[in-house]
Amino acid sequence: MCEVEEMVQKMLGGDEQCLARLITRIERGAPEVPQIMSQINFSLGKSHIVGITGPPGGGKSSIADRLTGLMRADGFSVGVVACDPSSPFSGGAVLGDRIRMQQHYLDREVFIRSMATRDGRGGLSPTAKEVLKLMDAFGKDFVLVETVGVGQTELDIMDAADTVVVVLVPEAGDAIQAMKAGILEIADVFVINKADREGADAVAEDLKQMLRLNPKHEWWEVPVFTTEAINNVGIDELYEGIRNHRKSLEEAGQLDIRRKAQRRAEFLQVVERSVRERILALINKNEQLMASLERVEQGKIDPYSATDDLLASKALLQTWRTTLEGEG
Amino acid sequence: MCEVEEMVQKMLGGDEQCLARLITRIERGAPEVPQIMSQINFSLGKSHIVGITGPPGGGKSSIADRLTGLMRADGFSVGVVACDPSSPFSGGAVLGDRIRMQQHYLDREVFIRSMATRDGRGGLSPTAKEVLKLMDAFGKDFVLVETVGVGQTELDIMDAADTVVVVLVPEAGDAIQAMKAGILEIADVFVINKADREGADAVAEDLKQMLRLNPKHEWWEVPVFTTEAINNVGIDELYEGIRNHRKSLEEAGQLDIRRKAQRRAEFLQVVERSVRERILALINKNEQLMASLERVEQGKIDPYSATDDLLASKALLQTWRTTLEGEG
Repeated sequence: MCEVEEMVQKMLGGDEQCLARLITRIERGAPEVPQIMSQINFSLGKSHIVGITGPPGGGKSSIADRLTGLMRADGFSVGVVACDPSSPFSGGAVLGDRIRMQQHYLDREVFIRSMATRDGRGGLSPTAKEVLKLMDAFGKDFVLVETVGVGQTELDIMDAADTVVVVLVPEAGDAIQAMKAGILEIADVFVINKADREGADAVAEDLKQMLRLNPKHEWWEVPVFTTEAINNVGIDELYEGIRNHRKSLEEAGQLDIRRKAQRRAEFLQVVERSVRERILALINKNEQLMASLERVEQGKIDPYSATDDLLASKALLQTWRTTLEGEG
Repeated sequence: MCEVEEMVQKMLGGDEQCLARLITRIERGAPEVPQIMSQINFSLGKSHIVGITGPPGGGKSSIADRLTGLMRADGFSVGVVACDPSSPFSGGAVLGDRIRMQQHYLDREVFIRSMATRDGRGGLSPTAKEVLKLMDAFGKDFVLVETVGVGQTELDIMDAADTVVVVLVPEAGDAIQAMKAGILEIADVFVINKADREGADAVAEDLKQMLRLNPKHEWWEVPVFTTEAINNVGIDELYEGIRNHRKSLEEAGQLDIRRKAQRRAEFLQVVERSVRERILALINKNEQLMASLERVEQGKIDPYSATDDLLASKALLQTWRTTLEGEG
């Protein structure tokens, strides 16, 4: 049995150190990633994956922290993945594990990992999704994934999470701003945090009204909770709302539908990435294609014409033929 | 001369109606997009493209509005592209042109377009980038592109813009929050808007200090401006800062480097999209591959193994061969 296979076996058996080491491999984009994901494929789907998102400074980390406390009090194990958009230059996480979730660090049933997003996309990278899967396969009852921002990030969480919690603050602006950011449709649960501040009730009421006017599903009415995470106010209700959402998903047969869509989207992502890598490798070793890339860089040919040339090139066909013959 | 070719010719000659119609074609993903982009390729690169980004509610639209006023006063023509993250469900822009930039609507030298991002990515889609290019080719001196959010969006703007303006508000949180969102490195210019609110000076000072500790370039010191866009305070200085950035880019020889990187990134995006489309079409018409996709959806095979199967399949090779023979 090779090293990685053994590591996955141990991880599936509950070895936390192996979990940590496998996550590191995934973050580094190790060549064994496909093998790892293939090996854990049949251990997936038991965790309740909760995505927590919203603009910076809304208190998402505090909410994750408080929720973790409640989940632990109920005897559930918890995984936490905190995604810091990486600098496109440094590629590193800006905030480390240290300043997050301090109270849970000594709890063996809580596994916390901060990660940078490696692919320079600023949101939940495919890598982050694979880390969620590892925590799922490891057997965590809940996996919380926290991301910053509105944009790509939310839609990616929607792909990966069972329940999407959108955290706003009273100053995040009125309901029009909320719609503007496109978050109305992706939220399964809304939270107005820092509810002791002025305007919290008005924002909550606006949101509720908009949600009534634009009901998302027949089987689920999106709730709006007001919380003060640092004072531990309103977190019980939020926790119950999150659990109710998962129950509704299951009862309405929606969990299966979501999972299918997730797998489909992920498959297409993996295909795209693989093709991109192969084509890049191809360009790098083919003189004719390198010359074509240079002409694009210099503006001498537009990207569309160059793409047509590339995809019709004999060199590309040759690569595929080699792949086919190599594996068949 | 076919219809689209004529439309592009007219647009390049200054016909605004043709510009509007071409933008609509691009938004709809019309099959003529490659032809349009190829035809305008040699008219690109003259505009100063200014990206304006930041969390919702920061007053980005007001700033774009005020900047437009100053640019017009200097006799420059202006294009404005406002990107509303589209709902993944409706695909439509939430806020229309109507409530933006009202004062400039009657000015013929200002062309304003609100657009939804079609590809469900929440940020600047490749489509938005193509619209920027159309405005560039049309001959606008400045093109302002406004997007919401932190994440994918900023990094995409960095690809497409010459100067990236990041707009924060005093409540956006302290400097740590700014770093957390990964925006420190992508900003060429910072603005603290709504500077009449409490804490504005402190946030500006924090930012300046962090920027001194992490200088981005030798040839450009990122400035931090404080503005009150609705009261027209501080906009002159911001405008000057934006123009200085472009001047520094040119003098340091960085504009060429940026443009090359933009073209390269765009080429690879177009390649990815094309390959994705071809593979999707292939899956849809190949029974064996449809069966494989179904197995992925049901969780019976992991996405990585399925990708390996797909990329090694005879069906895929056959597609490429057909393409090759069809065009050669």
